[in-house]
Amino acid sequence: MAKDLFSTRRMEALTDGVFAIAMTLLVLDISVDILGNVSSNQQLINAFTSDFGSSFISFIISFLLLGSMWAVHARQFDSIKFADRRLMMINNFRLLAVVLIPFTTSLSGTFPELTLATMLFPLNFMALTFLSSWEWSYATSNSKLYDKNELSGKTINFLKVKNKIFALSSVIVTVLSFFIGSWAFILFLPVSYIWMKLAKRI
Amino acid sequence: MAKDLFSTRRMEALTDGVFAIAMTLLVLDISVDILGNVSSNQQLINAFTSDFGSSFISFIISFLLLGSMWAVHARQFDSIKFADRRLMMINNFRLLAVVLIPFTTSLSGTFPELTLATMLFPLNFMALTFLSSWEWSYATSNSKLYDKNELSGKTINFLKVKNKIFALSSVIVTVLSFFIGSWAFILFLPVSYIWMKLAKRI
Amino acid sequence: MAKDLFSTRRMEALTDGVFAIAMTLLVLDISVDILGNVSSNQQLINAFTSDFGSSFISFIISFLLLGSMWAVHARQFDSIKFADRRLMMINNFRLLAVVLIPFTTSLSGTFPELTLATMLFPLNFMALTFLSSWEWSYATSNSKLYDKNELSGKTINFLKVKNKIFALSSVIVTVLSFFIGSWAFILFLPVSYIWMKLAKRI
Amino acid sequence: MAKDLFSTRRMEALTDGVFAIAMTLLVLDISVDILGNVSSNQQLINAFTSDFGSSFISFIISFLLLGSMWAVHARQFDSIKFADRRLMMINNFRLLAVVLIPFTTSLSGTFPELTLATMLFPLNFMALTFLSSWEWSYATSNSKLYDKNELSGKTINFLKVKNKIFALSSVIVTVLSFFIGSWAFILFLPVSYIWMKLAKRI
Repeated sequence: MAKDLFSTRRMEALTDGVFAIAMTLLVLDISVDILGNVSSNQQLINAFTSDFGSSFISFIISFLLLGSMWAVHARQFDSIKFADRRLMMINNFRLLAVVLIPFTTSLSGTFPELTLATMLFPLNFMALTFLSSWEWSYATSNSKLYDKNELSGKTINFLKVKNKIFALSSVIVTVLSFFIGSWAFILFLPVSYIWMKLAKRI
Repeated sequence: MAKDLFSTRRMEALTDGVFAIAMTLLVLDISVDILGNVSSNQQLINAFTSDFGSSFISFIISFLLLGSMWAVHARQFDSIKFADRRLMMINNFRLLAVVLIPFTTSLSGTFPELTLATMLFPLNFMALTFLSSWEWSYATSNSKLYDKNELSGKTINFLKVKNKIFALSSVIVTVLSFFIGSWAFILFLPVSYIWMKLAKRI
Repeated sequence: MAKDLFSTRRMEALTDGVFAIAMTLLVLDISVDILGNVSSNQQLINAFTSDFGSSFISFIISFLLLGSMWAVHARQFDSIKFADRRLMMINNFRLLAVVLIPFTTSLSGTFPELTLATMLFPLNFMALTFLSSWEWSYATSNSKLYDKNELSGKTINFLKVKNKIFALSSVIVTVLSFFIGSWAFILFLPVSYIWMKLAKRI
Repeated sequence: MAKDLFSTRRMEALTDGVFAIAMTLLVLDISVDILGNVSSNQQLINAFTSDFGSSFISFIISFLLLGSMWAVHARQFDSIKFADRRLMMINNFRLLAVVLIPFTTSLSGTFPELTLATMLFPLNFMALTFLSSWEWSYATSNSKLYDKNELSGKTINFLKVKNKIFALSSVIVTVLSFFIGSWAFILFLPVSYIWMKLAKRI
């Protein structure tokens, strides 16, 4: 009786807002307060090359990863035109994983020596890739939701495979973080670079 | 003389922005600062299973409830095309209830042993459901505001009943929180699940 | 040579974002931290009826005023279709006044006994009403910027007068705050209510 | 196989969100906490004319500069209609420079006596102008991305030159900050004013 399909415009607006805020909140973690008592240029350089420096690097990595995950959402919804209630719920779970990124980034920056703390960021990112993959699978399983002129069955299958490869690479990095600690973070960047390269060839 | 009806596009944009920020601000409440001095994986696990854990659970519940309340707004305004001044004011009161959610969540997380503190979150949520119901009643009472091709009189009445059922269930949870304290929170999730299920049958 | 007129869509999006964030940031000022050591329901009631209570009231007032000022912007731009560089700059100054509201609200809440501190909030709000009035005057002075089918010369003049009445009432409240301190705040609500009523009669 | 070109609508929404939040976060740096113990109007005036005053001025400058950089983005994308993956990535790097502005503003406000700290804000702004220039160059190098009816080859070349003049003026201010410290900030405003004037003549 009531409407079953809704425009995805509002979902896109909420998603853009949540990503924009999560990406900007990351910067609150590198506030000047944690620089402590700095009274010379040399001390400032020291601060940047010690703890603050590693916080800064994880800020950059998290920002670029969130930016990439946003771009994945933007590209997915360029073809998805309608949403049902379930798609809205899956999208909310995906946003939950986005919102947790500033917290897990901060956690691994504060306790770099604890395996558990450094592991939560890759796990968070892994959850985000899985939810991205799940949302795409769900949306493309119902031909009422997407624009058939833009997405052929072949393309849909290809993109599903690509999503799974990406989700798998996030599993690998999570496992690696058990053994090599916070250094595993750095592997996200080449992984997403290779993934971008692969995506371009298609 | 001046225009009386305005496009709802701007109201939707403000609402998406306020929901996105409120949903993201919730995460500030589970900052690493409250973990205190943690120096081993075991201590981190302890922190997660004690106070921090309960904060984390109320964060998840509040996030999903806000997500559901956003989806209600998105679905309502899928059919509402124009706004008058009063609708804009009602929407602002609704956003006030949204903006208070991070505060009342934080309050019940910080003082879980005080009935008054734990009661404010359900009351806040109850106010949000009532305002959602009021805005829908008002918008559908003026046939200039909604799209008649999408909403029949029968659908409008049905949705009004549904809104009232939901508002009633939030009253029940608020009353329950007097007796069973913070455990009443957990009832919001099955209530909204049942509500989602019911909504699907229509 | 280059384009002179731009769609107002982006200006609207930035404005909605800034208002949404400013309205939500207000809530950060009533965080649980300022409740201090509360260990019984009675102490929580005391906290709510003393300092915290007055903070809470100024939060509500600021939120509703910002909501009203947002509605003014939304209604103005319902008829304004194009922006030139100067309109973009005026809008940025207006957003500056919006962004300062959480700060001046917080200032008058923290130092309610200092005339200077309580005066800054009405001055801030006054600046916002003046800038709103200026932006409307500028936009309606260039017939390329607005939709002539929606705005007659008579309507434009009427709305200019209305804007000036509102700006004047904010001057009165500012002057009053010199003599009656923070109580002058409360006058904003009836003023904006009367203003809403007047606006409806047009 | 997969789509190569996407609507710029989502990129615009993310950018508006990030700018809106960065512009509003600036205000968090001038919170009442840094006023310290103030108990008379005279003390409040003293606070405003000393450290707090200089923080306030850098807040205003940063806000207006971010507003101008947002307007540059809005005007650029008024003609750019489609985005490929690379343009999305360049835009994310540009947003990274936007998000860092509140941090570098805060840094130069907290340590005004350290050359290194005051230098980071102009460097940040310089990076933002360079990325703006790069994104425009990239977008206009591919005729599939922009609207040929709105942008002639002559206009594109002219705007490229203008972007480079602006990027150059940010280099000059950065070099100046080595010698005259935080006073160099003040030069950004006349530079952007002259630049606005020049832009109008075109």
